[in-house]
Amino acid sequence: MIVDKNDIEAACKQVAPFAHRTPVLQSSLLNDLAGCEVYFKCENFQKMGAFKMRGALNAIGNLSPAQKQAGVVTHSSGNFGQAVALAAKNLGVTAHIVMPKNAPSVKKEAVAHYGGIVTECESTLAARESTAKEIQEKTGATFLHPSNDMDVILGNATAGVELLQDQPNLDILMTPFGGGGLIAGTALAAHYYGNHCKVIGGEPFNVDDAYRSLESGKIETNETTNTIADGLRTHLGDKNFPIIQELVSEIIRVEEHEIVAAMRLIWERMKIIIEPSCAVPFAALLRENERFRNQKVGIILSGGNIDVKNLPF
Amino acid sequence: MIVDKNDIEAACKQVAPFAHRTPVLQSSLLNDLAGCEVYFKCENFQKMGAFKMRGALNAIGNLSPAQKQAGVVTHSSGNFGQAVALAAKNLGVTAHIVMPKNAPSVKKEAVAHYGGIVTECESTLAARESTAKEIQEKTGATFLHPSNDMDVILGNATAGVELLQDQPNLDILMTPFGGGGLIAGTALAAHYYGNHCKVIGGEPFNVDDAYRSLESGKIETNETTNTIADGLRTHLGDKNFPIIQELVSEIIRVEEHEIVAAMRLIWERMKIIIEPSCAVPFAALLRENERFRNQKVGIILSGGNIDVKNLPF
Repeated sequence: MIVDKNDIEAACKQVAPFAHRTPVLQSSLLNDLAGCEVYFKCENFQKMGAFKMRGALNAIGNLSPAQKQAGVVTHSSGNFGQAVALAAKNLGVTAHIVMPKNAPSVKKEAVAHYGGIVTECESTLAARESTAKEIQEKTGATFLHPSNDMDVILGNATAGVELLQDQPNLDILMTPFGGGGLIAGTALAAHYYGNHCKVIGGEPFNVDDAYRSLESGKIETNETTNTIADGLRTHLGDKNFPIIQELVSEIIRVEEHEIVAAMRLIWERMKIIIEPSCAVPFAALLRENERFRNQKVGIILSGGNIDVKNLPF
Repeated sequence: MIVDKNDIEAACKQVAPFAHRTPVLQSSLLNDLAGCEVYFKCENFQKMGAFKMRGALNAIGNLSPAQKQAGVVTHSSGNFGQAVALAAKNLGVTAHIVMPKNAPSVKKEAVAHYGGIVTECESTLAARESTAKEIQEKTGATFLHPSNDMDVILGNATAGVELLQDQPNLDILMTPFGGGGLIAGTALAAHYYGNHCKVIGGEPFNVDDAYRSLESGKIETNETTNTIADGLRTHLGDKNFPIIQELVSEIIRVEEHEIVAAMRLIWERMKIIIEPSCAVPFAALLRENERFRNQKVGIILSGGNIDVKNLPF
């Protein structure tokens, strides 16, 4: 194992001063429906609205003084851009966020509100990468990857650590499976803080690159990005894939309508706002609920950033 | 004072076994925006989704064995019907809920799901009252009023008591102002458990019967019910009005667009679901925020039952 428990403890220390210790909620109604005890770790209540704050805080916090002086850069159309902007602000570091021109203006404004410097580019991955590269070369800023970075993974692990501190006897810990950064961190948390706690990912059938990667033993990609779970369209990386191969038990895939139904259940029954990607593990649990019967299941509710004017129900 | 502290303590004991002790949430972003410290008591997370559960539990719990045997009846198109159905189920009592024919089927199903016996009637107040009366006469069931009943008021008080136990030094406690049952209970809680804690109600300009009642000294009514805050269309009663006259400092009225804006802020920034009526006190605070500067303000978030397919934004 390339990570040891001290690395996770260090991440917890790094993250704690600037992140919420988010609550763990339960719903007796959803427990009845699922046939098991579900503990929801509410990262939708995290600063900037998603667990990504944790990885960004740890990655920026671990930079050297000279690196901090030169700033950080990332490209993102989603939560990681906001997380880097806010974490950098908290730590007194300049953050450059490359965003596609056609990103919703509300997202650009959120990044700017957190003090991030927005640079717009064309909406292709190549344009995003080359624009970030230019900023790196011009400013000396450190590039931060949203999921394939050990400090980001360790920062993400802190959500699972907190959940296991509150509920040490979880049988299973579930997260959405996107670029692999959250599930890799959560698997490390379960390995070092759990009591025989299995880790299971939820993934949309429509972007099941991770499921296929674990089958084939190499990093697979998706032919389309046609899922409502817009945070889960990304691929695995060389840093997180080995951790996942070693520590994640399995991936349960779900249909789009199951994601929407699970999201709506959590909205209506728990009265909390989650984004579609966030509903995927609960959808996976409901799809195969026979296997979870009477177990204690923790679910990381990854985020709650959604346009309330544009809902799938 | 017709109520003493022992009555409230008794209500707390009666309510606690079957209600959630709901969390108190804060948002640094909303604090910045409001210019004061706001403590949100999340009754939207209460069983059946609203504070009304507390009043129903206390009122039914305080019935004699013979009365419990005969059951309870109320008429409601909203949260109180669900509250009575669920509280009665918890306490092993039969509940008859009179609902207008044109009530949304989702609400009728919710009452039936909680074990309530739904009787449909025409959608006039007269039809609701006469149908409830018939059931009373036929079954001997006790009629429960949603807001003008001392046991309901005392049950409602328990939300404020819990909030003041968690935050004993609130300067101000705010609630929506509808039929007067919540604010009367909250005012009793502030009187007996607060430390010079003022109580302020929020009310829509479009149904400002309570504001005018406090001005005139007698119970006023509304000419229209034209507000998005559908829980606040009701009038004061002879049981709660004297308490309110004695213990409520003032009422701040708000425009419809202010209610929608406050609701959206709480949804987007706190990631929690509240119904329009519930947003009214925060709208009132924002409208007159100069007067609240640097104060510690508690707000009872009254409920979160809303059709997510039909939002005002």
